[in-house]
Amino acid sequence: MTQRCKDHPWVYLDNNATTRVDARVLDAMLPFFREHFANPSSEHALGTSVSEAVHTARRQIQSLIGAASSKEIVFTSGGTESNNTAIFSALEARKDRDEVIISTVEHPSILAVCDHLQRTARAKVHRIPVDRNGRLDEETYRRALSARTAVASMQWANSETGTIFPVDRLAAIANAAGALFHCDAVQAAGKVNMQVQSTHIDSLSISAHKMHCPKGVGALYIRNGVSFVPLIHGGRQERGRRAGTENAPAIVGFGVAAELAAQALLHETPRIAALRDRLESEILRSIPGTMVIGNTSDRLPNTLNIAFEDVEADSILSLLNRDFIACSQGSACSSGSMEPSHVLRAMKVPFAFLRGAVRFSFSRENTDHDVQRVVDVLPQSVKDLRLNMVPMEAACDYT
Amino acid sequence: MTQRCKDHPWVYLDNNATTRVDARVLDAMLPFFREHFANPSSEHALGTSVSEAVHTARRQIQSLIGAASSKEIVFTSGGTESNNTAIFSALEARKDRDEVIISTVEHPSILAVCDHLQRTARAKVHRIPVDRNGRLDEETYRRALSARTAVASMQWANSETGTIFPVDRLAAIANAAGALFHCDAVQAAGKVNMQVQSTHIDSLSISAHKMHCPKGVGALYIRNGVSFVPLIHGGRQERGRRAGTENAPAIVGFGVAAELAAQALLHETPRIAALRDRLESEILRSIPGTMVIGNTSDRLPNTLNIAFEDVEADSILSLLNRDFIACSQGSACSSGSMEPSHVLRAMKVPFAFLRGAVRFSFSRENTDHDVQRVVDVLPQSVKDLRLNMVPMEAACDYT
Repeated sequence: MTQRCKDHPWVYLDNNATTRVDARVLDAMLPFFREHFANPSSEHALGTSVSEAVHTARRQIQSLIGAASSKEIVFTSGGTESNNTAIFSALEARKDRDEVIISTVEHPSILAVCDHLQRTARAKVHRIPVDRNGRLDEETYRRALSARTAVASMQWANSETGTIFPVDRLAAIANAAGALFHCDAVQAAGKVNMQVQSTHIDSLSISAHKMHCPKGVGALYIRNGVSFVPLIHGGRQERGRRAGTENAPAIVGFGVAAELAAQALLHETPRIAALRDRLESEILRSIPGTMVIGNTSDRLPNTLNIAFEDVEADSILSLLNRDFIACSQGSACSSGSMEPSHVLRAMKVPFAFLRGAVRFSFSRENTDHDVQRVVDVLPQSVKDLRLNMVPMEAACDYT
Repeated sequence: MTQRCKDHPWVYLDNNATTRVDARVLDAMLPFFREHFANPSSEHALGTSVSEAVHTARRQIQSLIGAASSKEIVFTSGGTESNNTAIFSALEARKDRDEVIISTVEHPSILAVCDHLQRTARAKVHRIPVDRNGRLDEETYRRALSARTAVASMQWANSETGTIFPVDRLAAIANAAGALFHCDAVQAAGKVNMQVQSTHIDSLSISAHKMHCPKGVGALYIRNGVSFVPLIHGGRQERGRRAGTENAPAIVGFGVAAELAAQALLHETPRIAALRDRLESEILRSIPGTMVIGNTSDRLPNTLNIAFEDVEADSILSLLNRDFIACSQGSACSSGSMEPSHVLRAMKVPFAFLRGAVRFSFSRENTDHDVQRVVDVLPQSVKDLRLNMVPMEAACDYT
């Protein structure tokens, strides 16, 4: 399955940040840049044919997440817009309620919206803590819910640790309190089975570029019957729920990517999980002072977050980068920050490990060769860093 | 310059709705789907190289619109998002002011935001009328401005008629009243020379897919020093002004498209204007009861809006569609509506012409052959329709 580019030797283990576009996805998109370039809202036949392709993609997304109807799918510019839209919409739609409940380990696109709501006094925000394994404190969650809760927003899986939340149970609890339940499923979609129809989830965000489709497109599932107020106003695209010319090539690609992801979910998941598990056990075996971060008993099959005592992740990443291995410290959306990850802080990761966590995230393109490359270089790198033997200027040249 | 696809004979004269992606733009994008697919926010070298490409594109956009700095450019998902962001931001940034001024002929992405603001009692909206040529009533505009005006938003050029507003003068007037001035330049960018730096414009929207680049990407210019509040919150992308993984392939394409548009602006504009003018004069000569809509003395060089007395534009479009000619009734964003265009109603187009307006919009890909094709079929089509001789069921099969 590896589609590694011949002209560089990179091992790419940063698939939770973004993924390479699958060649089949790109092939499906190309005609929509060229001959089928028309505006799907145009009334001429050129527009109509593009509109039909967008409809097909909508049904492919519906199928991936197990929605009841393709009408429940709204295409957006990505996961961040979907998350913003869901939270703002819930508050606008439920004018009688002015509180929001989230976990402390949500993605920045949820956290920043809530910070903004609080700063502008538009909502009171409850932030529910997690335990050392990243599991939600459900008792505190239950207590925070009330007749003032407009929406509870919880991620399906954490992007940094892969820890999975019991979102259906959390949604049922929210619904029982009369609150809407939004789920950020950006990191989980295509990696775990989803039948959103049979859950209590009211809205759910997914993103295309996490599943071998280009950036710039995502979707927001909105359960039929749930009140909705758009974030972006204008034309009547997406049944008046998201204005702006439809990103038809990317939407078509998204549909194909969703179909491929659904197939891979069946056939590739055990192989991907085995690669991840092998890397985890090899690192634990060969490097002392390491600690796996997250809930290993309920975790995305592709994600390994592992921390090295008394080492800076930055330095490890620099050395891996020098060896053409790409991985990360956590969410790319948090990069640029010198602070330790908010997720690891929320999990109360011990201080000696807090700055030493590295995330390896796999996709169906990875092979055992990739694991071997990491296993070949990482133990010595960590050892050198602990002995302070690495000239960091040289390492930094590559970053 | 024509890149007509060999497998269909279409004459595409709907370039204000969207444009075909230029082959050079697509070529520039392709590596960013394949080998350079990384997240530009990622810290490894794969991410850094994408980040540099995004920076190059930012400077290309800066150059197209004549901004002072590339830092004034924020990439968005398109013109609609840019327009929404600018209006909402102005109101959030100017908490002491609660009025918005727009024209009656703005794009739906401005009109709908203002309807929403009014419905939710977040702002009072002044809608300034235009005359029969689509020119703004500047006296009413001046009177509407006050110490309560947060922002005035006026389009550079109207998408349906091509009529150009004197935006620099309008911006200066707004600034003198202490108000911000936003300009929707989606339809004008790449078609007229822009040196936004030397104007009084505070923010300005452009869209890539109007200039032979794919859908799903646009930009918002925000003058250095102007207060700004994001619409989409989350990660620190775009200097904290627009969260979400950067749509790197599309942004790279947008940069190249901007450069090609700047070149075409110099070399192709007279040819495009001549094509438009020939079509206009041929139609006026050969079809009685026609009327050019818009300000013919200050109009985009590529746009012709022309109305046919006592004929439905729908019927004309159906017949042209049957002859593989794509044009439109106006904004694709307004399609699906059975109402006459809000632009034409605002211009008080006489009733007999109101439902008979057709927009032909050219690009650098059009040739004289395209004009000839329209000239060959349109007079007879209009004649037949006026004689009620066309079986509409047959025509409608194609739409």
